[in-house]
Amino acid sequence: MSVGQSVRRVDAFDKVTGRAKYTDDLCGRDALVAHILHSTIAHGFVKKLDTAEAAAVPGVVKILTCFDVPDIPFPTAGHPWSTDPGHRDVADRHLLNRHVRYYGDDIACVIAENDIAAKRALALLRPEYEELPFVLDPEEAMRDGAPLLHEAFPNNILKHTGFTTGEFDEAIKEDGLVHVSGTYQTPIVQHCHIENHICTARMESGKLVVVSSTQIPHIVRRIVGQALGMPWGNVRIIKPYIGGGFGNKQDALYEPLCAFCSLQAGGRLVKLDVSREETFVSNRTRHSIRFTLDTWARPDGRVVARSIRIVSAQGAYASHGHSIAAKCGTAFKTLYSDEKANRADIYTVYTNTPVAGAMRGYGVPQITFAMESHADDVAKALGVSPLEFRALNRIRVGFHDAFYGYSYDTDRLQKCIDKGRAYLDYDRKLAEYAHEDGPVRRGVGMAMFWYNTGVWPISLESSSCRMVVNQDGSLQVQLGETEIGQGADTAFTQMTADAVGVSFEAVHVISTQDTDLTPFGLGAYASRQTYVAGQAIHDCGTKLKRQLLTYAAAHYGIPEESLDLKNGMIIDTCAGKDVAPLGEMTTEALYSLTASRHFSAECTHQITSNALSLGCCFAEVTVDIPLCKVRIDRIINVHDCGTLINPQLAEAQVHGGMSMAIGYALSEELKLDPKTGRVLNDNLLDYKLSTTMDHPHLEAQFVETPEKSSPYGNSALGEPPAVPCAPAIRNAILQATGVALDRTPMTPHVLFEAFRNAGLL
Amino acid sequence: MSVGQSVRRVDAFDKVTGRAKYTDDLCGRDALVAHILHSTIAHGFVKKLDTAEAAAVPGVVKILTCFDVPDIPFPTAGHPWSTDPGHRDVADRHLLNRHVRYYGDDIACVIAENDIAAKRALALLRPEYEELPFVLDPEEAMRDGAPLLHEAFPNNILKHTGFTTGEFDEAIKEDGLVHVSGTYQTPIVQHCHIENHICTARMESGKLVVVSSTQIPHIVRRIVGQALGMPWGNVRIIKPYIGGGFGNKQDALYEPLCAFCSLQAGGRLVKLDVSREETFVSNRTRHSIRFTLDTWARPDGRVVARSIRIVSAQGAYASHGHSIAAKCGTAFKTLYSDEKANRADIYTVYTNTPVAGAMRGYGVPQITFAMESHADDVAKALGVSPLEFRALNRIRVGFHDAFYGYSYDTDRLQKCIDKGRAYLDYDRKLAEYAHEDGPVRRGVGMAMFWYNTGVWPISLESSSCRMVVNQDGSLQVQLGETEIGQGADTAFTQMTADAVGVSFEAVHVISTQDTDLTPFGLGAYASRQTYVAGQAIHDCGTKLKRQLLTYAAAHYGIPEESLDLKNGMIIDTCAGKDVAPLGEMTTEALYSLTASRHFSAECTHQITSNALSLGCCFAEVTVDIPLCKVRIDRIINVHDCGTLINPQLAEAQVHGGMSMAIGYALSEELKLDPKTGRVLNDNLLDYKLSTTMDHPHLEAQFVETPEKSSPYGNSALGEPPAVPCAPAIRNAILQATGVALDRTPMTPHVLFEAFRNAGLL
Repeated sequence: MSVGQSVRRVDAFDKVTGRAKYTDDLCGRDALVAHILHSTIAHGFVKKLDTAEAAAVPGVVKILTCFDVPDIPFPTAGHPWSTDPGHRDVADRHLLNRHVRYYGDDIACVIAENDIAAKRALALLRPEYEELPFVLDPEEAMRDGAPLLHEAFPNNILKHTGFTTGEFDEAIKEDGLVHVSGTYQTPIVQHCHIENHICTARMESGKLVVVSSTQIPHIVRRIVGQALGMPWGNVRIIKPYIGGGFGNKQDALYEPLCAFCSLQAGGRLVKLDVSREETFVSNRTRHSIRFTLDTWARPDGRVVARSIRIVSAQGAYASHGHSIAAKCGTAFKTLYSDEKANRADIYTVYTNTPVAGAMRGYGVPQITFAMESHADDVAKALGVSPLEFRALNRIRVGFHDAFYGYSYDTDRLQKCIDKGRAYLDYDRKLAEYAHEDGPVRRGVGMAMFWYNTGVWPISLESSSCRMVVNQDGSLQVQLGETEIGQGADTAFTQMTADAVGVSFEAVHVISTQDTDLTPFGLGAYASRQTYVAGQAIHDCGTKLKRQLLTYAAAHYGIPEESLDLKNGMIIDTCAGKDVAPLGEMTTEALYSLTASRHFSAECTHQITSNALSLGCCFAEVTVDIPLCKVRIDRIINVHDCGTLINPQLAEAQVHGGMSMAIGYALSEELKLDPKTGRVLNDNLLDYKLSTTMDHPHLEAQFVETPEKSSPYGNSALGEPPAVPCAPAIRNAILQATGVALDRTPMTPHVLFEAFRNAGLL
Repeated sequence: MSVGQSVRRVDAFDKVTGRAKYTDDLCGRDALVAHILHSTIAHGFVKKLDTAEAAAVPGVVKILTCFDVPDIPFPTAGHPWSTDPGHRDVADRHLLNRHVRYYGDDIACVIAENDIAAKRALALLRPEYEELPFVLDPEEAMRDGAPLLHEAFPNNILKHTGFTTGEFDEAIKEDGLVHVSGTYQTPIVQHCHIENHICTARMESGKLVVVSSTQIPHIVRRIVGQALGMPWGNVRIIKPYIGGGFGNKQDALYEPLCAFCSLQAGGRLVKLDVSREETFVSNRTRHSIRFTLDTWARPDGRVVARSIRIVSAQGAYASHGHSIAAKCGTAFKTLYSDEKANRADIYTVYTNTPVAGAMRGYGVPQITFAMESHADDVAKALGVSPLEFRALNRIRVGFHDAFYGYSYDTDRLQKCIDKGRAYLDYDRKLAEYAHEDGPVRRGVGMAMFWYNTGVWPISLESSSCRMVVNQDGSLQVQLGETEIGQGADTAFTQMTADAVGVSFEAVHVISTQDTDLTPFGLGAYASRQTYVAGQAIHDCGTKLKRQLLTYAAAHYGIPEESLDLKNGMIIDTCAGKDVAPLGEMTTEALYSLTASRHFSAECTHQITSNALSLGCCFAEVTVDIPLCKVRIDRIINVHDCGTLINPQLAEAQVHGGMSMAIGYALSEELKLDPKTGRVLNDNLLDYKLSTTMDHPHLEAQFVETPEKSSPYGNSALGEPPAVPCAPAIRNAILQATGVALDRTPMTPHVLFEAFRNAGLL
């Protein structure tokens, strides 16, 4: 068996030697370049855009402005299409926008022979604006009379939903309840993948061919078709290796514009390679969300009712929109799902800020920060320990979610908590640090999380797979699900080897997706891939193996039911002996003069299940109060994502998520100038990305409860690692200092203010 | 129906605008280059090869000599592999050869950062040879004591076969027979495709990836694997558009060497782009063949026995070897297959000359020149007209070939002859030119030909096909059979449209073959593709259509048997109305939350049939005896290749073949220096390629007898156009001048000598 082994990544060698090909590596020598002019106001209309001077720059091929693009509003979110118009993403932007809605909006584009000509021309473009008032804060944006971003959305409310579970109004009337209220704020952050978004487009064979650094080639095909008003089959998207995405590339970013540029340049190859500055401002960000949490609990620590108000700042365009805030609601409901009364009121609100979209965790890092911070605040108010409070109120064996169809059958979370506790020696330290009072104090904290796997039943979950056998018995596997640096190809290879019955080395995953050739798949998001593609791989591999054994039965004259294929060897299970290496048979089959056969299999697997992924983080910190500095001494994430396909890759995945979460906790925030709406720190010097220099040893441990709905027993691990660290650190600071911080990032500035308010400084 | 329509080529727009991508267009920016050192002796051994000076040239990365290559002899012919070792091509060359066997043999290779460095280094390589006597003529090569090229082949005989049909020895004893003997000689010519052979190689994802201008990607995969001693599945061949091949690229030319260079350069991208000079000398050529024909006929014109001696000059390495001379034997037997006694004695002989391989016609232009010239010589000796002689002796209705399995059911050839005759007003002119006697004389001539389709039952005939439907109802089709400029992609598109039931515009053929992704197919040769791939397309399209209609039946609740798909519309044949456009259903299917489905089909079709292709050429010439110059006044090829898939493309195919045949008749010959074996005219200035300047109007007409073994009714048209023009021209010269020429090309030099011998000068 290959699944469960820490085999080396299939792309390791190519990536460390520089052989791996990325979008720019594949760009032809004669490409034109496209550069975008971004607005320098946060809200208003482009009245005029003088291109005369710019057009005269030698090397400029064409200048396109917001007055030149088709009047086709289109959505950009990387969700599956829906045949139900009510279930589609909001189409609220044009390729270039006359109505400017944030500082950095796309208003014109220069196509030139080279970067220098394009940049010279950009500097000579003269937009004239009609400026309008702008609004950066979502609460303000909802007020009557606030500047309106999109006519179709009064009060800038993109969507407002809510729910009540249990007898909420009754429950809070119970006598003797302790009521704790808290407000928690999360910042705008950016994904900061290594490779900025880049794409190229050209006409070839009557199709618009787009090579793109995207997570979702098949979805981008559809969106480019929509944006350009052309049949979707006339668009071909090719996705080579990409240098990370983290959800930013789960939107169609500039593929539609680049494609339009190529059309406008007579079908010539055009490259649109965005800068880091543009990545920060004009791609996507993580939603900044404000949470107001209220908990009513009995003095023994048992919660009877909870309410939440979620206000999510969408930025200027809808992108993934309300899905993120809605997922916060689900996490809120599920993690503490002990038949409590819950109430939620959830808003997603347009603001004149950079657009928020998908980002690793998809709202769950935000709600988990709020909910798990609040849990400690409530526990403290009640005088029970954090773990005691959680033990009393968290998800319990017997829980079943009728919507997602999953159940909590064994106390998996307890097993995770036990591992975290043991690693940190938590109980001892909790006692030891109970009365810290010096300038430098220590504390321990923890947080739990809930996650799900894929998007069923909210959206389509479907994966297709094709396998092609070579004459030597090796095989290729193709999937629409994408390698984005996370190691998906390696997991797919392992699963294929096991499904077919060949060695890991005999399987070659075709990493590049080409929507003309690759079976339809939705791409890398929602921590879905190993779960969803695994089912397609299992089906397809089983189908292929059956074909091979049927041929073998006829070829070798052995009853099919006694044949099996293991590790590339056809075996006679009844006779208990090897029949022939697969490669021998496939060579004979391919070149047979009587029964020539090329072996391949292809199938679609529709997924109508979902799977729980759970875990926790434990952290130990040292807080230097005078310096307003937090040092993480020890930190551990424990995940139960079912069976590990590749333990080493799983560990690496957790390390990456924890790194992202530490930045989210302590340093990362996109700052806006309140006077202009301009992003102040659109670069990796001023934006404090967490790096290996800022980390202690990152410990990743696992509980492996096999997931029944997956043939390989696995559930989500892509996003969860980024979820629980920030509240665990926050709660450790609380234990150390007694100060309940209400926001991330917990920078020295924030700590200074909080410590001063608390009288510590 | 799309088949039968002269739809525009699918690649027309890309090719005329320069958008179409060829191997060099796809080469990465940082490619190393490889250049080959060719021997300057015709026969001998490389004793030493001093690389010191060359290696010191800045930019040189590595120098590989014949002492550095693996000791693995490999074959190069583009034939299907056979699991029967006795049926495999001869493995008689190394990547670089220490035993030099022709002037131009490959003995070393420089890998460098750029062309200049490589060429400077080439000039500084110092080979030392042990020279051996060489032999250029195959008859001489067969003599005892001749220089031996390959130890395993005594007397340089690569292969000797023969056959006798009927009671030959008895037949020739009949009283009163007229015996006519003749010897006919054909020259070495080269294919002269526009794009020279070029390939690139690199290591990627653990595979050797070779991009090549080849006709046979799947076969080249196997040969590269063989030559390098690596599993065939570890090799990946990608074939983009190519600028012609004509059989030269039906060999693995430099793909194995280029792949080896990449391995030796640490897997870096290496480009090997051969010059026109190398194309002439060190690629492949058409076999020069000498025929001795003897005919025994009754005075009434009826032939009772024929014998042939075929001596084919192979050149230094086996390549396609004896297959070509053997095919001459089949043509000899079949075209005049009126139960005559036949005897054939066929030799293929190694010579110290450039290697002969496949070239359009595969021996049949040679034998047809000999046989059809001889037919006129016999007719003349007997005093019957050329057409009368042929009517008496040619293939007759009732003929059945038990080996190929085809029959001559109707007198198709007569229909072809009638068309040619009518176009030329042949009968009238034959009489009119019967007594030409001035210095400028006119004449008419004709020749018939036989051809077959594909290689069954000699070798494997198998084609696989995959079709993938997009959400908008358009679809892609993939085949291992290749577009090499002949328009195959367009024919495939038409056949796919009809098989599935969609419009021509809805079908997109994936022109590029990638052996990792493209279903196995053998490639472009043997005039097989439309015949062989057509069967796979028909199967696959039928399978796909069935899938679509099964889904439609469930989706729309209509019995499947009353549903059909026509021109992209699902129709209810019982109700007699449209149900829905296919694209509507496929969109709903793909995004269905209950029955998501990605539609695709893939299958292998093994071909166990062959098909006759027949026709003729009629030519009218004016011969200026003092100037020794022939002008073609009118020329027509008439083909019966069954149903025409695309009449306009068929006409273009015939035009191309006739142009090639005119060069073969009048001007083209690769000349060897008898003192050194060196090619004297290895360039397009000295080698007189026939061009449009040399042509009259080329008339192409067709007889369309539907071929029963093909679902689309078609048989071979790729090669036949190049076959009959040379003997038709030769026979017209014979009528005009009374001079029976015995060789091509019939250049002024040849005419001068012949006319002088005949007393005309």
